[in-house]
Amino acid sequence: MIDHSLLGPTLTVAEVEAGCEQAARLQVASVCARPCDVVLASRLLAGTGVLVGTVVGFPHGATTTPAKVEETRVAVEQGAREIDMVLTISRLRSGDLPAVEADIRAVVEAAAGSPVKVILENAYLTDAEKVAGCLAAERAGAAFVKTSTGFAPTGATVADVRLMRATVAPSVEVKAAGGIRTLDAVLDLLAAGATRFGSTATATILDELAARR
Amino acid sequence: MIDHSLLGPTLTVAEVEAGCEQAARLQVASVCARPCDVVLASRLLAGTGVLVGTVVGFPHGATTTPAKVEETRVAVEQGAREIDMVLTISRLRSGDLPAVEADIRAVVEAAAGSPVKVILENAYLTDAEKVAGCLAAERAGAAFVKTSTGFAPTGATVADVRLMRATVAPSVEVKAAGGIRTLDAVLDLLAAGATRFGSTATATILDELAARR
Repeated sequence: MIDHSLLGPTLTVAEVEAGCEQAARLQVASVCARPCDVVLASRLLAGTGVLVGTVVGFPHGATTTPAKVEETRVAVEQGAREIDMVLTISRLRSGDLPAVEADIRAVVEAAAGSPVKVILENAYLTDAEKVAGCLAAERAGAAFVKTSTGFAPTGATVADVRLMRATVAPSVEVKAAGGIRTLDAVLDLLAAGATRFGSTATATILDELAARR
Repeated sequence: MIDHSLLGPTLTVAEVEAGCEQAARLQVASVCARPCDVVLASRLLAGTGVLVGTVVGFPHGATTTPAKVEETRVAVEQGAREIDMVLTISRLRSGDLPAVEADIRAVVEAAAGSPVKVILENAYLTDAEKVAGCLAAERAGAAFVKTSTGFAPTGATVADVRLMRATVAPSVEVKAAGGIRTLDAVLDLLAAGATRFGSTATATILDELAARR
């Protein structure tokens, strides 16, 4: 249930290689790689059972729809099997829900069957905006709604996961990400309804799990 | 000499409109708009003498070259006349200078004559990496090298502007951005060799200038 995040802007190629090796060893759901690393991660993770995912419009969500579509198309072509896109935060905050929904739908279509996780970046939203963003994502065909990028002032909270879980249909999953560093945090967010977790602290979390078992 | 920055991920449409009106009133060089606002800013600033610029691969520089090219193409088509791109920080830190240079060159070509400013994001670089990034940008046809995005832990410094100015040919300008909030900061960076300044505090800076004059 963990997407191992390798999204920091400073990561070198050697650090991405080490992160992919760790992800394969830990048998996580996926590596969430930067777009520039999808080719590398796809090569390193081939045959390991760990998927490669990547991000689109990340982390501000402020690129145009044609740019997000091209990012998605290239990512899928290069081996990405999950797409974590940032919705257009500005337009959600401006109440332009048709624009938000059309942007997501275009990415879902470009993903050609690969599941799309829609990042709301809750740090910047009111509860009403979170609900509106979740519903737009569901209408547009998102597989997941996701709390955060990990690059805003706050990340996943139990209250937000509960709200998002209560908002979307059972067929849409909730991914919690941002500031998740302990097994207890994962368990609290799981109890709140999240079924996927984005973290850089994957090894720490799984070590804790092994110790408790 | 000021590019008025409207890059914050939370800005609403109304805030972008207000920012463009302010930029027109203050007669700055350009508005540096988010990609999703280029159409709006181009409409609002038509005939004012203030150019519209935008950002590519912003702020992490970690998108693929094809995605940066498409972002640039769409931006120019929609009215952007200056392109501030983030180089591939990861590859610069990994010593893969051919990849860094090819990525910049592809954006310069897609910009079709509009000047390209290459953001190094000095916060994450050693001095040797800053020099290597500047030289790659110059070889690739950049019009400017630029210190920072404004979204990293540190922004423009006098020492970095001096280093960048000493590194690139006289035909390449230096843009200082990130944390520039006072006229004194602008004057110090100007003395160090910068000829363009990115700021959100444009009104404050120009009020100070008027008061001193």
